[in-house]
Amino acid sequence: MDELDQLCINTIRMLSVDTVQKAESGHPGMPMGAATIAYVLWTRHLRHNPKNPAWADRDRFVLSAGHGSALLYSLLHLTGYDLSLDDLQQFRQWGSRTPGHPERGCVPGVEVSTGPLGQGLGNALGMAIAERWLASTFNRPGHEVVNHYTYVLASDGDMMEGISSEMASLAGTLRLGRLIAMYDANRVTLSATTDVTFLEDVGGRFEACGWHVQHIDGHDVAAVDGALTAARLVEDRPSLIVARTHIGYGSPKKQDTFQAHGEPLGADEVRATKRTLGWPEDPPFHIPADALRVFRSSGERGRELEASWQRGLASYGSSHADDANRFTRVLAGELPNGWQSHLPTFTPADGEMATRDAGGKALVALAAVVTNLVGGSADLDPSTRTAMKDRGDFESPLRPPADGPKTQGLAGGEWGYGGRNLHFGVREHVMAAALTGMAVHGGLVPFGATFLTFSDYMRPSARLAALSHAHVVYVFTHDSVALGEDGPTHQPVEHLASLRAMPNMMVVRPSDATETVEAWRAALQHTGGPVALILTRQKLPVLDRTVLAPAAGLAKGAYVVVETSGRLPDVILIATGSEVALALDVHARLTEAGTASRVVSMPCWELFEAQPQSYRDMVLPPEVRARVSIEAAATFGWERYVGRDGASVGIDRFGASAPAPVLMREFGFTPEHVMETVRTVLARTRARGSGKPVS
Amino acid sequence: MDELDQLCINTIRMLSVDTVQKAESGHPGMPMGAATIAYVLWTRHLRHNPKNPAWADRDRFVLSAGHGSALLYSLLHLTGYDLSLDDLQQFRQWGSRTPGHPERGCVPGVEVSTGPLGQGLGNALGMAIAERWLASTFNRPGHEVVNHYTYVLASDGDMMEGISSEMASLAGTLRLGRLIAMYDANRVTLSATTDVTFLEDVGGRFEACGWHVQHIDGHDVAAVDGALTAARLVEDRPSLIVARTHIGYGSPKKQDTFQAHGEPLGADEVRATKRTLGWPEDPPFHIPADALRVFRSSGERGRELEASWQRGLASYGSSHADDANRFTRVLAGELPNGWQSHLPTFTPADGEMATRDAGGKALVALAAVVTNLVGGSADLDPSTRTAMKDRGDFESPLRPPADGPKTQGLAGGEWGYGGRNLHFGVREHVMAAALTGMAVHGGLVPFGATFLTFSDYMRPSARLAALSHAHVVYVFTHDSVALGEDGPTHQPVEHLASLRAMPNMMVVRPSDATETVEAWRAALQHTGGPVALILTRQKLPVLDRTVLAPAAGLAKGAYVVVETSGRLPDVILIATGSEVALALDVHARLTEAGTASRVVSMPCWELFEAQPQSYRDMVLPPEVRARVSIEAAATFGWERYVGRDGASVGIDRFGASAPAPVLMREFGFTPEHVMETVRTVLARTRARGSGKPVS
Repeated sequence: MDELDQLCINTIRMLSVDTVQKAESGHPGMPMGAATIAYVLWTRHLRHNPKNPAWADRDRFVLSAGHGSALLYSLLHLTGYDLSLDDLQQFRQWGSRTPGHPERGCVPGVEVSTGPLGQGLGNALGMAIAERWLASTFNRPGHEVVNHYTYVLASDGDMMEGISSEMASLAGTLRLGRLIAMYDANRVTLSATTDVTFLEDVGGRFEACGWHVQHIDGHDVAAVDGALTAARLVEDRPSLIVARTHIGYGSPKKQDTFQAHGEPLGADEVRATKRTLGWPEDPPFHIPADALRVFRSSGERGRELEASWQRGLASYGSSHADDANRFTRVLAGELPNGWQSHLPTFTPADGEMATRDAGGKALVALAAVVTNLVGGSADLDPSTRTAMKDRGDFESPLRPPADGPKTQGLAGGEWGYGGRNLHFGVREHVMAAALTGMAVHGGLVPFGATFLTFSDYMRPSARLAALSHAHVVYVFTHDSVALGEDGPTHQPVEHLASLRAMPNMMVVRPSDATETVEAWRAALQHTGGPVALILTRQKLPVLDRTVLAPAAGLAKGAYVVVETSGRLPDVILIATGSEVALALDVHARLTEAGTASRVVSMPCWELFEAQPQSYRDMVLPPEVRARVSIEAAATFGWERYVGRDGASVGIDRFGASAPAPVLMREFGFTPEHVMETVRTVLARTRARGSGKPVS
Repeated sequence: MDELDQLCINTIRMLSVDTVQKAESGHPGMPMGAATIAYVLWTRHLRHNPKNPAWADRDRFVLSAGHGSALLYSLLHLTGYDLSLDDLQQFRQWGSRTPGHPERGCVPGVEVSTGPLGQGLGNALGMAIAERWLASTFNRPGHEVVNHYTYVLASDGDMMEGISSEMASLAGTLRLGRLIAMYDANRVTLSATTDVTFLEDVGGRFEACGWHVQHIDGHDVAAVDGALTAARLVEDRPSLIVARTHIGYGSPKKQDTFQAHGEPLGADEVRATKRTLGWPEDPPFHIPADALRVFRSSGERGRELEASWQRGLASYGSSHADDANRFTRVLAGELPNGWQSHLPTFTPADGEMATRDAGGKALVALAAVVTNLVGGSADLDPSTRTAMKDRGDFESPLRPPADGPKTQGLAGGEWGYGGRNLHFGVREHVMAAALTGMAVHGGLVPFGATFLTFSDYMRPSARLAALSHAHVVYVFTHDSVALGEDGPTHQPVEHLASLRAMPNMMVVRPSDATETVEAWRAALQHTGGPVALILTRQKLPVLDRTVLAPAAGLAKGAYVVVETSGRLPDVILIATGSEVALALDVHARLTEAGTASRVVSMPCWELFEAQPQSYRDMVLPPEVRARVSIEAAATFGWERYVGRDGASVGIDRFGASAPAPVLMREFGFTPEHVMETVRTVLARTRARGSGKPVS
C-alpha cells in the first residue's frame, strides 16, 4: 500500500482513538476498522465541500453505525469542516459539538442523527429517493442540477436489524442506483461474534433484493477504491459493498475483540497501538502535515466541484428561470405564495365525513399547489386516503410495463422517479426512517401514512426524526376503537399518550373536517419537527361554525368551541377528535338542565402548552375545577388538564372486535355516560367548595 | 385433483367466505387462496388434538397473517375444536369468541394473538426455540416427550416487515429444523401488487439466511403435501415453502384483486363464487358431510396421537420420575418450591451498586433454582448484566466448534439447545416476539434484555404480548439520561410514560439493590402479562432498611420509605428508581429545616393502582396537596399523583451527551433544585389553604 495512504488511514485511526481516550468514553474499534473505507470514500469519491456543508448537490454520507462517531468527527476535522481539534477534545462533554452519537444540528456535516442501529440505512434510502425525485423533477436536458450519490456506512449490528431488510427490499424494488451501502463487516458486536448470532450471507440477502453486491477486503485501498468506482457505475441497482474488516485494527491486545467495540483502549493500549502502527506515542491528537494536506486537498476539490455546479445552476437559471426559481425555493424549504388559499372548506352541508376523508381532500388540494409534497403509505393509502390522484407513482423508469392495475391509488400515468406517490409496502419502520431522510435531504415536504396502531412500528425512527428536527408529516388514521371489527390488535388505545410523551413530537387530533384542514395547515407550518395527524375511520358531523367558534382556534392547540353565555361554566368538557361532537351533545343536555358548561376542543396539547399562561387560563379558568376530558383512548396524562377533582372518559384497556357503534356505546362514549360522569364531578367539586382554583 | 380433497378445500373457502359475508366485515381473499395449504397441513401433517388443545406436545400452528382469521376459525370448527357454527356466525361481534383477528384466550386452538404483520413469524420462532429447549432438557434416550413442529402461515405483508428478516436470520443461525414457514405468496396486498412494492426474491433471502426453501403451486394438493413432507425431513435447517396462490381464489370478479383482500365479497359475488366452484348457493355455512368426515377424522387421528404420547409420558415417568415431575411442573407454569429463598439480600455494606448489577445477581440466583428461566439480550448482555453464567448458550449442536471466545457472557461449555442463554443478536423486535412465543408455548419462563430506549423497537411485539397475557420479563437497563455520554439517541426520556400507558403492561423501576430483588420476585409472580424491569446503569446506594421501610413494600406498588414522625407531612416526595436516594437526601434537609416530609417510593404504578383505596390514601393522604414527584424521565402522567398543586421534577426534552453526574446536575436532579421545587409547592398550597383534599 502507498505510504501516504497508510499515513492518512492511520491518522483517522489515531485521531479517533485519541478522541475516545480523552473522553474516557466511546467506541474506538469501528473507526480503527473502517478507516480505510472512510479514507478512500472521503478523499476520492465523496463530492462535498467542507466550506459549504449545505451545498444542495453534495453527496450525502450517513454513518448508520453512529457509535463510530469519532470516525465521522475525525473526517470532518481532517477534510476542513468547521470542527476544531478542540471540539474533538470535548467529545462527549456537556454542551460540546461532538456528542456521543452524531446529532443533526450540532455540527455541520452531520446529515442526520444516528446511533440506534439500522436507522441510518433507512435515512439513506430516503435521501436517495429525494435525490431521484428532485433530479427527475428539476433536471432538464443538458442541465443536471441534481446529480449526487448517497453513501451509508453500516455495521454488523445495522444489518441484523429488521429495518435493514425493509430498506434493502424497497431500495431494490425502486432500483435506486445512486444509493451505495458500505458494510463494515468486522464480525464482532458488543456481546458476541457473528458466528453466534449472524451466520447469514448478508450479500446474498441483498442480491435477493436486487442489489449489486461486491465482497472486498476492507483494509485494501485499491479494493475499496475499485468497489466504489464499480458501485457508482452501476446505475440500475443500489450497491452493497461487503468489506471484511477487523475491529480495533492495529491494537495488539484488542483487535478482533469485544473490548475494542465500546470502551476506550486504555492509555497503555493506545501507546501499544501507536507503536504497532508506527505512530508517535506523543503528543495525542497528532496529525502529520502530509496527511492533513491530502485530506484538505480533497476538501479543496470539493470547493471546485461546488463552484462548477454553481455555474451550471446559473446556466440553468438562464434557460429555465421558472424551474430554477422553484428549485431554489423548495431547497430553502419555502412554501409557494398563497398555498393556504387552496385549502378546502367544509360545512355541515357536506354531510358527515370521516376526518381521514377530510384529510385526504386537504392533501389533494395541497398537492396541487405544494408541488414538492411527496409521500405515501405503508400499503394502506386506500384506507388512509393519502393517495394523491393524478400525481403519479414514484417508481423506477425501468419497471416493466403494467399488466393490469398495480395500485389502488390510481396515481395516473407513468411518472418514473417524478411520481409523488410513494409505495412503501408493508414496511412502516423504514417508511419513517426514509421520511426523515427525505426531510433532512431538503427540497421535499414528505409525509407517510398508516394506521395509528402501527405507529408503534415506526417509533424508533419517529424518535430520531424528533431529535433531528425533521419536518415530516405522519398521517395516522383509524385512530380509536371506533375503527370497529378489526379488533384490539388494530385499535390504538395508548398511542396518543405515548406520542404526546415524546419530546418534539406534535400530535394533532382534529374534531371534524374543518379542524382537519387546520391541522394540515399547522402541519405544513410547523417545520421544527414531526407532526402526527390523528384521523378517524368513522364518519363525523362537520361542525356548524356559524354557531360554533372557528376551527382556526386549532392553531392555539385548544379553544372554546361553545359555552353557556354570561357566566363561568360549572363544568368544562375537554374533548379531542371524534369526541368533540359528543361533548357538544352533552353541552346541549347540560344547558337544558340549567348547568352552565363549556366545550373545549383540544386537538393539540403541544400547541396549547406553547401559549402564554393568560391564554391557557382563559380557556381553562383555574377556578373551574369541575372538568371532564373525553377521548376514546387511554386516560393516561389527562390529569394534567382535569386535575384530580375532574374525571376522564377514556379507555384504559385493550379494545374489542365489534361494529363501531357497539364499541363506542360499550366503552361509555354516550351522552348518558358522560352526563353521569359530569354529575359525579360536579357533586365532588361542589362538596369541596367552589371558587377554589383547580389543582 | 382428488374430488374429496377439492370438496374439503372448497368447504374451507366457502365457510370463510360466508363467515365474512355474515359479519359484513373481514378478509375473505386470504382464506380462499390459502385453503389448499391449510387443508393439507391440518389434515395430513399437523399433530394436534381438537379435543385437547392444551396437549403439550401438539404441533403449533401460528397464523401470522392474522387478517385471515376466518380461515383459522373454519379449520377449528371443521376439525372439531370447541367452536360452533354459531360462533362463526358471531364473527367480529361484541363478546363473540371469533374476533376480527385471532386473540389468544378467546377460543382454544388460537396459540397467540396475531394481526399486525410479521408478528406471528417472530412468535413461531420463539415456539420453535421453546420446543428445542424442552426437548434437549427433558428428552431421554428412548423417551421423546417433546417432539413437535411449529408451523407458521405468512403473507406477502408479513414478509415485507423487517421482523421477518430478523426471524429468518436468527432461525437460520440457530438451525431450527422444526420450524416450517409457509408463505402464501398471492402477490396482492391491500393497496398494491407486489410488482410495485416487493420485487425481491423472498426465497433467496431465506436461503441466504440458511433456510431450506421450496417453491410450489399453492393450489396443488400433492405439491403442498410433498413440500411439507420434505420440510419435515430437513432437520438441520428451518424450512420455507413459497406457495404461489391466488387471493380470492374462485371469485369470478375478485380473484387476484385488491378488493378480495379486506372486504366481504358481497352477496352477489358470494353466489357467483359458489357457482364457479360448484357449490350450493344456499344455505350459507353449508358443510358437506363427506368433507366434515375428513376433517373430523383428522381430529380423531389427533386423539390417538395424544393417547400414544400419554403412554410414552407414563413410561418416561416410570423410568425418569424426577424429570417427569419437573416436566409436568414447568408445563403447568409452576415455580419450584422455595424458589424465593434463593433470592439474594443486600445491605449498605455491599457498597454502591447499579440496579442492573443487583438485577444480574438476582437473575443468577434465580437461574439456579428456576431451571426453566431462559433468556438473553439483543446483543447487550454484558451491559444489561443478563448473562446466566455457567448455564450454557442456546445454540445448534451443529455449530462448528469455537475458535476463541464467541460471547462475552461466558455461559460455559457446549450445551446445544439445552443452553439457557439466548443470543438474539441486534434484533430487539424479534426478541420480543420470540419471547411471547416462548411464553405461550409453555414450559419456560422467558426474559429478554436491552436498553430502555430500544424498547421502542420491541413495541409492536410487546403490545401483543400484553394482549396475549404472555408472561415474559423484559429487562430494560440504562434507564435514564444518567447512562451518560452515549447521549440522547440512547437516553430514554418518554419511555416510562409510554410503557405505563400500555394496558396490561407492568412497569417496575426499583430504587436500589434490595427493591430490585423484590422487583424480580414480583416479575416471576405476575403471570398475567409482561413485566418490564427498569434498571440503572449508574451505581446507587443500597438503602439502609434497618432505618427505612422494608423493600417488600414494592409488592404494593408504592410505600412510605420514611417520614417525619408524629404528624401528617407538609409535603410528600414521590420518587422512583435512582431518584429515591435523592428524595431521601431532600427529606433529611427538610427535616433539618423543620418541615415534615414523607418519602414514597413508587416503583410500580400498576401494582399501586391495584391496591384498595384505603391503602392508596394511607400512602398518599388526600389532604396533603403539597406533593413533588422526582423521576429522571418525562413528567407526562405524574399529574395523576401530584395533582395540579404539586410539581414534578423530570426531563421534558431529549437528553444530552455528557458524563452522568454532569447531566443529573444540569437536569436538576440535585437536592438544591428539588428543595426549591418543594418550597414553591409549599408556598402555593399554603396560599390556597391547607387541609383541603388534594385535587
